[in-house]
Amino acid sequence: MMMAAETLVRLRAAAGAAGWSEDAAEIAPLLIDWRDKYKGATPLLLKPNSVEAIAAIVRVCAETRTAIVPQGGNTGLVGGQTPSAQGNEVLLSLRRMNRVRNVDALGNTMTLEAGVVLADAQEAANGAGRLFPLSLASEGSATIGGLISTNAGGTGVLAFGTMRELVLGLEAVLPDGRVWHGLSALRKDNTGYDLKQLFIGAEGTLGIVTAATLNLFAKPAAIETAFAAVPTVQAAVELLSSAQAHGGTVTAFELMPRIGLEFVLRHVPGTRDPLAAAHPWYVLIDISLKAGEATGVAADVLVEAANKSLILDGVVAQSQAQARALWKLREDLSGAQKPEGGSIKHDVSVPVSAIPAFIERAGAAVATLVPGARPVPFGHIGDGNIHFNISQPVGADTQAFLARWNEVSRAVHDIVVHDFNGSISAEHGVGQMKVDEIARYKSAEAIDMMRSIKQALDPLNIMNPGKVVRVRPPV
Amino acid sequence: MMMAAETLVRLRAAAGAAGWSEDAAEIAPLLIDWRDKYKGATPLLLKPNSVEAIAAIVRVCAETRTAIVPQGGNTGLVGGQTPSAQGNEVLLSLRRMNRVRNVDALGNTMTLEAGVVLADAQEAANGAGRLFPLSLASEGSATIGGLISTNAGGTGVLAFGTMRELVLGLEAVLPDGRVWHGLSALRKDNTGYDLKQLFIGAEGTLGIVTAATLNLFAKPAAIETAFAAVPTVQAAVELLSSAQAHGGTVTAFELMPRIGLEFVLRHVPGTRDPLAAAHPWYVLIDISLKAGEATGVAADVLVEAANKSLILDGVVAQSQAQARALWKLREDLSGAQKPEGGSIKHDVSVPVSAIPAFIERAGAAVATLVPGARPVPFGHIGDGNIHFNISQPVGADTQAFLARWNEVSRAVHDIVVHDFNGSISAEHGVGQMKVDEIARYKSAEAIDMMRSIKQALDPLNIMNPGKVVRVRPPV
Repeated sequence: MMMAAETLVRLRAAAGAAGWSEDAAEIAPLLIDWRDKYKGATPLLLKPNSVEAIAAIVRVCAETRTAIVPQGGNTGLVGGQTPSAQGNEVLLSLRRMNRVRNVDALGNTMTLEAGVVLADAQEAANGAGRLFPLSLASEGSATIGGLISTNAGGTGVLAFGTMRELVLGLEAVLPDGRVWHGLSALRKDNTGYDLKQLFIGAEGTLGIVTAATLNLFAKPAAIETAFAAVPTVQAAVELLSSAQAHGGTVTAFELMPRIGLEFVLRHVPGTRDPLAAAHPWYVLIDISLKAGEATGVAADVLVEAANKSLILDGVVAQSQAQARALWKLREDLSGAQKPEGGSIKHDVSVPVSAIPAFIERAGAAVATLVPGARPVPFGHIGDGNIHFNISQPVGADTQAFLARWNEVSRAVHDIVVHDFNGSISAEHGVGQMKVDEIARYKSAEAIDMMRSIKQALDPLNIMNPGKVVRVRPPV
Repeated sequence: MMMAAETLVRLRAAAGAAGWSEDAAEIAPLLIDWRDKYKGATPLLLKPNSVEAIAAIVRVCAETRTAIVPQGGNTGLVGGQTPSAQGNEVLLSLRRMNRVRNVDALGNTMTLEAGVVLADAQEAANGAGRLFPLSLASEGSATIGGLISTNAGGTGVLAFGTMRELVLGLEAVLPDGRVWHGLSALRKDNTGYDLKQLFIGAEGTLGIVTAATLNLFAKPAAIETAFAAVPTVQAAVELLSSAQAHGGTVTAFELMPRIGLEFVLRHVPGTRDPLAAAHPWYVLIDISLKAGEATGVAADVLVEAANKSLILDGVVAQSQAQARALWKLREDLSGAQKPEGGSIKHDVSVPVSAIPAFIERAGAAVATLVPGARPVPFGHIGDGNIHFNISQPVGADTQAFLARWNEVSRAVHDIVVHDFNGSISAEHGVGQMKVDEIARYKSAEAIDMMRSIKQALDPLNIMNPGKVVRVRPPV
């Protein structure tokens, strides 16, 4: 279905002079995701820089039944930000909505527009002597609106929660083009249904987030970073519980398998094993301290853990440079899987205490399906969130391995859901990638409620249709 | 409208042998709230003890278009748990749904049925060496289901959030009698709209919460309690920020005015002023410490605050008995207002940094309306949540004073919303009391979204109708 020329004229007028583009060279990079999995098409890029212009655009969309796909930094991993390949949806970039509207240091809040890049948001907080704790690999590109719409996680969730916990209020353009002025700096408000919760994690299917008021925190006076080898995943889970009983706050607790460390040491120049011998599993720990809090906590944690036989060896960073080097091992883990060939990836969560059993059972299932395949389970163990990635067998054909993605994923997801009541998308969302997969695993009651909400709030099905929940069969 | 005898027969059958009552003496106390503001009527009390029985009951309600009002400990303050006075609604008590289904100490979660009393929930966590941090005055009666349905707050919100932040998963009976099995112990799950958020704070208008999986925390090794006099509310806000930069965790930070302390000293036997002189404002502070954390934090906080002239005087409890005595001053503050005559009460919130200006402006407005009226603003200053209660002028006629409730509330609420973008119900909810009041203050967009959600999920309008949001004009 082509879009009527008259509709495009009206949309351009609504966006204003510098608020749109039909330049294929400008649009092209926004139509493909960074993993190269989804490729969309659109006749028109809209890039307004005011909530009024976005409201005007959405009014035209509603009147003309035109589907609209919002996009922030285009760092999503499930195709939520990519329009359909049929070219019948307009793309709305929020990147020019990038003002910091307010920072209230004493009140510990800041109000930002949706297009502010996460790194800039962190810096706005930092400049006011405060911490905005959300942190993830794509923070140089990902925007606040996208992070809210996908309820982003990252490494700070253990202490500060996902984006959902960091949002106090929202401003959003509703599917009929009205503006919901829900910005609020309140910590408590029980005047009815908590509407902002609907937009957080909805991936633009219920409306377009244009601004948010976010929670800020005191900056830590110091962060102690430790890297320790553990004999088992169970020991890692127990070490977390033990570390949390010490002073300071455990602000990151990441799990890595030996094979993952080997990938990094092999493929990333300048990295080295922090420990003398090889061990089966590792954890990377950040402990944040406030002014006046006793230091040396990380060392205490490791000594106690060694006494309880929870760790085999460990080091505490003695400088910021050493801490950065330890973190680099974790951050390069995704990239270091690429030179090892195909990787079938899963972003799953289970209850924290079930992580050891899950990793074992999923690994066994994969070994049966694809003998020689190499699981590289890593991630945010304190959140129960494991990136259960599987590298191809050494020397195997990459395409043949990747062709088995759905079969392998089905086996892993079956274990996640049926054995552990877990989630098949812990932090990346649903998008296009998992819209049919979640319908398979969620109950009929849950899918029906999602569909009822979508139909109630977006009866024309123009807001990022086909993402998160289908209200009509796919064309 | 009378309920058909046939409907009552079917409902009794669905509830099972011990699952209902028509005994007026048993029902009567459930039809009146503890502030004596709302009085309901019902032909039938249902008190099932299984989710299957509740589902069967709701199926009958749906088939017969019978309205149903869920109730937990009957401690609500806004009439949300009270059926209509017309006797055309059945009352569903969840109190017999009171099993502790599971406590997972390592995973820091527990799963409880809706009728478990908060004090018992705290004890279940405590018995497993964990902390369930929700705490409020009615914890000996209030139930988990009611606390979830009203998104309860209390004194622990500053460090642990409201009930919304403590819920990981829910089980609920939907308005068509199906059961949504949404119990989950996951910290992260981005597989679509976060449905549990809809039931939290919905006061039973979208379905009936029957069980929940809740977040647990490490128990503090020690709690230091301090009581300090501050010259101004602004100083109290700054003291909070200063205390949070010290070691340990500020787990409570409560504000009291001098007049409130005087009421307690006058009316509660055995209380005494902890400080030698009278001062305008007081704060009560709890600082929780983990094992191994340096003690003496509360004293450090007070010394630093004195050096910055943020406090005028202060004491740190030297024993648990002293700490209890300090907390008793705060806990008896509500009750101590009763002997002073009529009290017009407000449960409002504003951004934390706006609290000083709000208290001043609201006090001035009240003084103009009712000369001699005595504001007693107190509460959870770290959450921006002030219980802005106003005692009648000394010697005034109580009924004449209370007759001005709506007029005074209108003035206070106008300042809360229009001047400070605050909330007219910070933690008590909407119920019957504020259903028309919130419609006055919330935007048309917000009310429309609430109504759309209600109609989408409860199209027959049988779930606690007339509470939170009206979909039909009041009869």
